[in-house]
Amino acid sequence: MPLEKFFNPQSIAIIGATEDPQNITSVIVKNLEEMGYRGRIVPVNPHHDTVFGFPCYPSLLTVKEQIDLTVIAIPSHRVPEVLQQHSKCGIKNSIIISGGFGEIGGKGALLEKEIKRICRQDGISVIGPNCIGVFDNYSNFTTSFLPWNKVQKPGKGYVSILTQSGSYAVSLMDLLAQENIGVSKIVSYGNRVDIGESALIEYFINDESTRVIGIYMESVDEGRRFINASRRCSKTKHMVALKVGRGNFGIDAIRSHTGAIAGKFEIYRAAFRESGILEVDGLEDFIDACKVLSMQKPARGNKILVITNGGGFGVAVSDMCSNTGLDLSRTPRSIKENLEKEFPEFYILNNPVDITGSSGNEDFGTVMKTAFIDDDFFDAAIVIPLMPPPGMTEGIVDIISQKAREAKKPVIICTIGGMHTRKIKLLFEEHNIPVFPSPERCVKAMSILVERGRICMESGHIPGRMPENFISKPEEKTVSSVSKTPRDLQHKASLSICSDNFKEAANFLKNIPSKAKTIVLPDKALDIIKSIGITTPAYLLTKTPEETVEAAELLGFPVVLKVSSPEILHKSDVGGVAVNVKNREDAKRHYHAIMSNISRNMPDTGLNGILVEKQLPGATEVIVGGIRDEQFGPTVMFGLGGIFVEIFADVSFRIAPVTEAEALKMIQDIKGYPILSGYRGARVMDVQQLIKSIVTVSEFISHVDRIKEIELNPLFVYEKGVVAVDARIILE
Amino acid sequence: MPLEKFFNPQSIAIIGATEDPQNITSVIVKNLEEMGYRGRIVPVNPHHDTVFGFPCYPSLLTVKEQIDLTVIAIPSHRVPEVLQQHSKCGIKNSIIISGGFGEIGGKGALLEKEIKRICRQDGISVIGPNCIGVFDNYSNFTTSFLPWNKVQKPGKGYVSILTQSGSYAVSLMDLLAQENIGVSKIVSYGNRVDIGESALIEYFINDESTRVIGIYMESVDEGRRFINASRRCSKTKHMVALKVGRGNFGIDAIRSHTGAIAGKFEIYRAAFRESGILEVDGLEDFIDACKVLSMQKPARGNKILVITNGGGFGVAVSDMCSNTGLDLSRTPRSIKENLEKEFPEFYILNNPVDITGSSGNEDFGTVMKTAFIDDDFFDAAIVIPLMPPPGMTEGIVDIISQKAREAKKPVIICTIGGMHTRKIKLLFEEHNIPVFPSPERCVKAMSILVERGRICMESGHIPGRMPENFISKPEEKTVSSVSKTPRDLQHKASLSICSDNFKEAANFLKNIPSKAKTIVLPDKALDIIKSIGITTPAYLLTKTPEETVEAAELLGFPVVLKVSSPEILHKSDVGGVAVNVKNREDAKRHYHAIMSNISRNMPDTGLNGILVEKQLPGATEVIVGGIRDEQFGPTVMFGLGGIFVEIFADVSFRIAPVTEAEALKMIQDIKGYPILSGYRGARVMDVQQLIKSIVTVSEFISHVDRIKEIELNPLFVYEKGVVAVDARIILE
Repeated sequence: MPLEKFFNPQSIAIIGATEDPQNITSVIVKNLEEMGYRGRIVPVNPHHDTVFGFPCYPSLLTVKEQIDLTVIAIPSHRVPEVLQQHSKCGIKNSIIISGGFGEIGGKGALLEKEIKRICRQDGISVIGPNCIGVFDNYSNFTTSFLPWNKVQKPGKGYVSILTQSGSYAVSLMDLLAQENIGVSKIVSYGNRVDIGESALIEYFINDESTRVIGIYMESVDEGRRFINASRRCSKTKHMVALKVGRGNFGIDAIRSHTGAIAGKFEIYRAAFRESGILEVDGLEDFIDACKVLSMQKPARGNKILVITNGGGFGVAVSDMCSNTGLDLSRTPRSIKENLEKEFPEFYILNNPVDITGSSGNEDFGTVMKTAFIDDDFFDAAIVIPLMPPPGMTEGIVDIISQKAREAKKPVIICTIGGMHTRKIKLLFEEHNIPVFPSPERCVKAMSILVERGRICMESGHIPGRMPENFISKPEEKTVSSVSKTPRDLQHKASLSICSDNFKEAANFLKNIPSKAKTIVLPDKALDIIKSIGITTPAYLLTKTPEETVEAAELLGFPVVLKVSSPEILHKSDVGGVAVNVKNREDAKRHYHAIMSNISRNMPDTGLNGILVEKQLPGATEVIVGGIRDEQFGPTVMFGLGGIFVEIFADVSFRIAPVTEAEALKMIQDIKGYPILSGYRGARVMDVQQLIKSIVTVSEFISHVDRIKEIELNPLFVYEKGVVAVDARIILE
Repeated sequence: MPLEKFFNPQSIAIIGATEDPQNITSVIVKNLEEMGYRGRIVPVNPHHDTVFGFPCYPSLLTVKEQIDLTVIAIPSHRVPEVLQQHSKCGIKNSIIISGGFGEIGGKGALLEKEIKRICRQDGISVIGPNCIGVFDNYSNFTTSFLPWNKVQKPGKGYVSILTQSGSYAVSLMDLLAQENIGVSKIVSYGNRVDIGESALIEYFINDESTRVIGIYMESVDEGRRFINASRRCSKTKHMVALKVGRGNFGIDAIRSHTGAIAGKFEIYRAAFRESGILEVDGLEDFIDACKVLSMQKPARGNKILVITNGGGFGVAVSDMCSNTGLDLSRTPRSIKENLEKEFPEFYILNNPVDITGSSGNEDFGTVMKTAFIDDDFFDAAIVIPLMPPPGMTEGIVDIISQKAREAKKPVIICTIGGMHTRKIKLLFEEHNIPVFPSPERCVKAMSILVERGRICMESGHIPGRMPENFISKPEEKTVSSVSKTPRDLQHKASLSICSDNFKEAANFLKNIPSKAKTIVLPDKALDIIKSIGITTPAYLLTKTPEETVEAAELLGFPVVLKVSSPEILHKSDVGGVAVNVKNREDAKRHYHAIMSNISRNMPDTGLNGILVEKQLPGATEVIVGGIRDEQFGPTVMFGLGGIFVEIFADVSFRIAPVTEAEALKMIQDIKGYPILSGYRGARVMDVQQLIKSIVTVSEFISHVDRIKEIELNPLFVYEKGVVAVDARIILE
């Protein structure tokens, strides 16, 4: 596999290696020895004969043996020279730890360009620069230069982490160790001149020891490749992403941090959804998601049983459940009757089942058996065993773990407290039962299992079961008791509209000279969207007041007048629109008013004329837009018009093209959906035609490269039919 | 002070005391001894002569000495008998630990009623039943029955906790100890038959060792008393509340848990805001808020400096800041120039200041001195010192703590990692510099300090400074470098409308017989709101088709017809409204249509006639409502009409009555405020008249007890003036 040598190199050359404890190469060598790395270590440094007993070479060019991978940790200005030696020695892979490149701008950015050029030219694969590099718990290989007494080494396991940020790589490693989460691989790829998340995900698809992939993402390397790789990967591995750089502040910090340009957060969300990646909201959520996915299998549904001996925590979990879409249905009558036989009157046997501080270990076992094993109503269980009551001992760990195994359904634990509780937590996690320190985090972790289960089912996969103890062999395909038939995903392949439909529009766009204004004139934009099958009102372009009046009479009053100029995108803002123009006098008057508004507001603007449009009856206004995103390419947006988009930001995004089913989901996703679906007895709007418009726009922007943005705004939606009253098209 | 004997009793009688290790009284005695309780312990139990060496009495009636407080831990059915003995012995205070009362319903609820009756009758103050009771770190008194080896005892400090839930009391105690948060008192009051949060807050107002009050709230005992007590208390103490029982699931769990009825979450929010209480969102946020408020002083503003050696975490903090209203302004030019003199080129000196992994301890000190001490631009600092880089040692703790003291502005730390990081955390917290384990929690903690600072300033108080080390004397009133003049709160006292204005309406309502329908007829409701000074359209009540036509002609077409019935609240839903009635024929036709709709949809409804209303031109529709809440009494609500309220839930609540300033804040609080304030060149609506309507409704419901709900819906808002087109009034 292409990246194999980065994770399991048989021999590495460490450029700049020395025994100086202040130098990071000395820590790297020590870390490798402590991990038990079994490949050959070849130091390269003109100032030493040996380094830690390894024979040292003055330069790469003098190394005789075959080198799988170089590790470069020298001042940035010397890196290009060393890289150039690689091809002469037949070396194909390098991890550049050194900083001082794009992240500092100026000279650094030029150096980065230079090393990028060398890599491309000589076909060298690079991780970095400005990174920690690789940690692999199976080949016992790492390029981490932080000593193990400052950063704990995590145990072996399933979780692999991808991050540009070196500080995150190190902190996550430490945290994962602290949280008993077994790790397979961690990769920090810094400035990402070559290898980024996309290539790494492609590699992980076939990496047996990776079953959960956690991505800490500032920006994406290649949007479409990332989606394609993730879509394949997430079929068999759990994927979790934490996207940072969302707000303006955050994006600022990223720019100075890695020089990368962060895309719009909403589009990332759409990409994650498209890829089967679970998105989380912060560092602790990220760790918790990795943990729960590595210890438990996804839930087949959202009916959650809650068992506690501390009523207050039952309340808190209930609260959270109602916010997250978990279903805390009441204990069904039949289960309740069986529980009543076992317990005193004052146990509360609804859901949450509150067996009070009077209960002990065995009572937890009894509830699990009766309500969770003997009956299949619930899909997963949250157990909250507070340890202080006298009936509670360490024995609780074996009881709950045993029942969880029998149930073959996910079980997670919430315990709250200090040292004693911490001890119990460690015991549970030895049995692969994950423990969370607050009701809120516990519920979030459960919703990760539920959401992952939903994704698996939808993509026709049965949520896999993790073995009790880690064994380094392919995942067992235990069949869980899922009864629902997974529905087939409607694949992108089955596009309903042939790209032939876009020929006319594409030709038209091709004929616009590339140095022309990038804003397509309003009438041309309407021409284009009409040609791809979207209904518009009747319209005519006019150049003089007389033409305007004539056109209005031809179309029939009332009409709308709109200024037509390649420089004006928001026509109303500059007084360039008149609505409800009722007669000839009106038309003439408004013509002159618009002209004088424009010459006052935008004196140097070239005008193309006045567009006269038949005024349509009022309707529900929506927006359908397409954007060619810098990272992910064509995306499509839907929202209700005006204030709903601009103030409530009530919109939904998807990666284009979308199927009809996806377009419907986009429409249903917005909060204001009831406005279209017949809210409080109002009329039901033509959602079917709206779906068609969304699909068309999504396919159009996917097929016609020259479009940067397209927007039907407003699109009037009626009980029957939709009409785009205005359209904007911006070219690349 | 009234509750003094609950926290510092000179002598306690433990009812049911025994040496049996399974019995909770034996743990209580042991806990008291371990804490070093110096009052007298008097066991009461007919089966023993001595208990742990203390002379034991067969019954309370035989006890000769004066008892400040009894602790009752016997089966519930025996509690009334023991309580009845209290008055005979002149005992006034009791903590009832025993469960088996309201929380189990049935017999238990009857028993609870009985003990409530005895307490009232005999003037006995009670905490409980079904509770943990009291923990006081200064008098060394507790009624906790959990052994200290299972629940850690927290150190002495400022934080006091109030909670009904016993499981929360215990878990919070354990967590506070774990998190190094010094505790003053913890009270769990269980079923709350007598003493609840209101009385306890009144007590804490004068409790010197309590400076931060954390309330875990399922429901409130007495809403208005709670607000009044908290408003006084929050002037000098920080108050934090976590409200549970928000969603439907949660409320269900609370009902079975304590039998209390949870009010609407939005109204609780309004009450917290009114009281100067900071509201938090989950267990960890609650603990973090208590911690940050007990260790640092509130921030005087929201300009936050972020310093880190791990760029990735700077990005994450930036992200969060942009969501929470913290201002991460760029480092001003002057500061940046001074920093540039100190540091190598590749340090990034914007905000976040990223001094990279190459930096060491001293660099953090330099940034703090230059950007935070020598210059007063920033109000507070978040420092993120990742410990793995070689330049970072334990010395960082002294450097940052020292600079924080010099700065006299709040400083908090975020460190992420495992065991080594944990050690550093403990050291920081010894210096009262709080440490948080993720960027998200760190930013939330900072926003608590900023929000608390804002509340202090608004109420004319200077955010107090915590001394470096805890000393048990009144808080020092250090004056911080605040330059802004605190604005006077507009007090409720200065009500602008005299209650005389409500006389007519109140008399009218008084004359409605109490067994009459509780829904006031539409025309009467309009009469009432007109009488309190709110404009309505012209309207007439009619009984026959002929009258309807006549009334419409009198008012002038177009008109609106509305069914008038004491049983119909939502008139449109049953076909009881016709708008835009243009002429005589229309009027007659609609009259019959409404009548037949009603007899079809609500065949058994008594009709009062048809209300004919002058139809007004379109306007921006809003809702102004008043609700008499079961817990908090009169509250007032504002929102935009229709879909904005019903789907987007874009409303704001306040406790009534409100001042004009508060009413304006309510209007500005909703997301859709731009719709009223001239969004994108739209017209500016008459917010001044809207404010008057809100104030009037808030005062009306405050003064006229019989109103349970009142709603102006819709209230039409124009550029000049507002008109209530419809009004609903529901009586108690």
